[in-house]
Amino acid sequence: MAKCLKNLINISDLSTDQMFDLFNVADSMKEILDKKKTCDLCKGKILATLFYEPSTRTRLSFESSMMRLGGSVLGFSSASGSSVSKGESLADTIRTVAGYSDIITLRHPNEGSARVASQFSHVPIINAGDGGHQHPTQCLLDLFTIRKEKGKFENLKVLISGDLKFGRTTHSLAIALARLGAKLYFASPPGLEMPDYITNQLKKDMNVIPSVSHDLKEYIGLSDVVYMTRVQRERLGEMEYLKYRGSYVLSEKTMEEAKKDTIILHPLPRVGEITPNVDKDPRALYFQQAYNGVPVRMALIAMLLGVV
Amino acid sequence: MAKCLKNLINISDLSTDQMFDLFNVADSMKEILDKKKTCDLCKGKILATLFYEPSTRTRLSFESSMMRLGGSVLGFSSASGSSVSKGESLADTIRTVAGYSDIITLRHPNEGSARVASQFSHVPIINAGDGGHQHPTQCLLDLFTIRKEKGKFENLKVLISGDLKFGRTTHSLAIALARLGAKLYFASPPGLEMPDYITNQLKKDMNVIPSVSHDLKEYIGLSDVVYMTRVQRERLGEMEYLKYRGSYVLSEKTMEEAKKDTIILHPLPRVGEITPNVDKDPRALYFQQAYNGVPVRMALIAMLLGVV
Amino acid sequence: MAKCLKNLINISDLSTDQMFDLFNVADSMKEILDKKKTCDLCKGKILATLFYEPSTRTRLSFESSMMRLGGSVLGFSSASGSSVSKGESLADTIRTVAGYSDIITLRHPNEGSARVASQFSHVPIINAGDGGHQHPTQCLLDLFTIRKEKGKFENLKVLISGDLKFGRTTHSLAIALARLGAKLYFASPPGLEMPDYITNQLKKDMNVIPSVSHDLKEYIGLSDVVYMTRVQRERLGEMEYLKYRGSYVLSEKTMEEAKKDTIILHPLPRVGEITPNVDKDPRALYFQQAYNGVPVRMALIAMLLGVV
Repeated sequence: MAKCLKNLINISDLSTDQMFDLFNVADSMKEILDKKKTCDLCKGKILATLFYEPSTRTRLSFESSMMRLGGSVLGFSSASGSSVSKGESLADTIRTVAGYSDIITLRHPNEGSARVASQFSHVPIINAGDGGHQHPTQCLLDLFTIRKEKGKFENLKVLISGDLKFGRTTHSLAIALARLGAKLYFASPPGLEMPDYITNQLKKDMNVIPSVSHDLKEYIGLSDVVYMTRVQRERLGEMEYLKYRGSYVLSEKTMEEAKKDTIILHPLPRVGEITPNVDKDPRALYFQQAYNGVPVRMALIAMLLGVV
Repeated sequence: MAKCLKNLINISDLSTDQMFDLFNVADSMKEILDKKKTCDLCKGKILATLFYEPSTRTRLSFESSMMRLGGSVLGFSSASGSSVSKGESLADTIRTVAGYSDIITLRHPNEGSARVASQFSHVPIINAGDGGHQHPTQCLLDLFTIRKEKGKFENLKVLISGDLKFGRTTHSLAIALARLGAKLYFASPPGLEMPDYITNQLKKDMNVIPSVSHDLKEYIGLSDVVYMTRVQRERLGEMEYLKYRGSYVLSEKTMEEAKKDTIILHPLPRVGEITPNVDKDPRALYFQQAYNGVPVRMALIAMLLGVV
Repeated sequence: MAKCLKNLINISDLSTDQMFDLFNVADSMKEILDKKKTCDLCKGKILATLFYEPSTRTRLSFESSMMRLGGSVLGFSSASGSSVSKGESLADTIRTVAGYSDIITLRHPNEGSARVASQFSHVPIINAGDGGHQHPTQCLLDLFTIRKEKGKFENLKVLISGDLKFGRTTHSLAIALARLGAKLYFASPPGLEMPDYITNQLKKDMNVIPSVSHDLKEYIGLSDVVYMTRVQRERLGEMEYLKYRGSYVLSEKTMEEAKKDTIILHPLPRVGEITPNVDKDPRALYFQQAYNGVPVRMALIAMLLGVV
């Protein structure tokens, strides 16, 4: 696979084989991390983190990954202070930074920007979020965590809850899970349902028809995996927000209805949709999931650089 | 000691023995630095610098320390551009970043934030300033410098001058110096005196009654150490400012009254309370003091990580 | 040379011999980069990048250079968030940061600031731009690229086009090229001509009288090197801008008039003065030129640190 993969722009760029190859490499990276061993695979290599939109979590996770591989990191964490303010095109910035680094990770507000970047770069581009479009490494770390904990995807019952309309990570996750054989359950407040083009794609391409509800409690008892996402208060009206609040908030009480081996995931940051008293529940794995972002990104960087 | 110390939140968390252990390690770190040797004690380790409030000096000093130990650094230098803007709690940020790093240094505007952070982190937390509360590494480097130059604390005459009301570094320094046996002299403009709860603590717990004046010149002739701090013009009225200006500004002329072996310290930045012509005086050690921040923080990081 | 050069403040600080020494070192650095070898010349060393004005390109190029040498980087990328906001003087910041690092690169809005910094620092200072005054490493990488591609400067015909009044890089470049024996051609919109003090210096000190035009097409056919720079729309009136637009924009069509072995350079970022369809022309070398900034800065850092 290492030879084939040049960039990671869209999760659908990866074949299932490539995905599992990456998970296997990530397994060995996780072992290095867990045992606190050092690694010099990327010694002398430079990762550029070009973040035109701020994202502490994603940026720091990429930086940690490159440092854990023995490499260095340069870049910027917001567009202000970059040459953007002088009117430079993304293509020109990418061509220049490609001369300063060995691999680039890009977050940009415009959909398709990462694809454009890859056309102007002679070093690999990793899409770290292009507008509401794609955020493939989030999807990879979600899948890696599910596989790690559940051992399989086939017939796994996965409930995805929250804002399924604007929550971009849920779109690629649903498609990827369907491709891998999981059964899908969606729970969202009215008005924030999964868009039709996603459910149509699920049905047409993969013959998957998700079960849909407005209350996560409807499916929590049968789910193997519960994937929670944020609902931004502003998306619903204040009335609606108060009305549906309880239907997509996971509390200690809701957890009583979940199975013993159900796992709870969340891409973070959360702002209230999982109550803090759930954190101590051994089924709550969202911080473990965030930690898994490091071995997954280590694997991706190492593969794109051809050092594994 | 290395085994006992888990975090550094408050200077009073350190026993006197622990403090001297740390100074001894810092001595050997200083030797490495002075001889321009390289050090790989923290190779492969990552320091996260989470600065919710800007502080160039403290942040760069920590970063330099970790780099001098052969480690790497990631983080942010202001709250904007962090997940804070998405409403994430400090606890969640800490738990996530603890997955990306081996040790965290935190500056946060809220008092007690570092203590909270330490409750949610499985990696060591160093308090780099929590509101007006504590800034223990500043205190450590001050004490280290005094010990380095004077060889002892017992019966040392230390004058602390400037804004003793709002200048947080002076509070912990006074307590620590009293504990170590120094004699204290305070000089501040009226209205900016050391708060009662500090003088009461000095008296009650350590039986130390500082000498107090409104003019630093009153004690300068007898002091072994003069510790200058900033007086912000806004704290006094403009009239008061002009009236008391000369009483807490250290000039070449004031230095004539100081002893030959008196040392002048300042936590920096200064904005006028030491005139530039004092800089060339061999007794002016504030830049040396800033430099000492590196070996002290190297020692602290290495001890918290258990590599010395 | 390594022994003599303490700082790089002004391009005229370098003798011709020193410049060629540096180019030779840069040649070997470029070979290391091109062959993707690693280098540990600056292992354990720290570069501080103090950017009081934002400049992504220059900052990232310096950071890449230090990382390629095996060293580490700390610093800030804008004045906000630095101690500047607390009113600290540049001299104090420099003295402090010199204690945290082995070499400092400074960008500051005030002319002469880098010279001042060098007077207060015991570590080498590299000027990365001081207001409209000097940006010597840009000049060095321009000259390095010309030498690399053309093999000589003597009698080389170099056309410098664009805003020659406010475009600071063109001033030092013109002086340096004249010193090295090149023939100069200037093309700028009316009102943005090269200032008299530069043309006078060229004439008086070096007996060079540049040919001057308002249209770059006048000289493009005879030039060995075409050095394009930005014209900011605001500098000309809107009427003037539209009137002169075609006279300083390099397009595919203009390129037809250039010689087969003419090379096109630009300090970047560009905002329209070279049309994107020129990029694929093998004579368009501006991205190569930007890339050359890394080996040139590597050479400079290594020489100032005395490790080559």
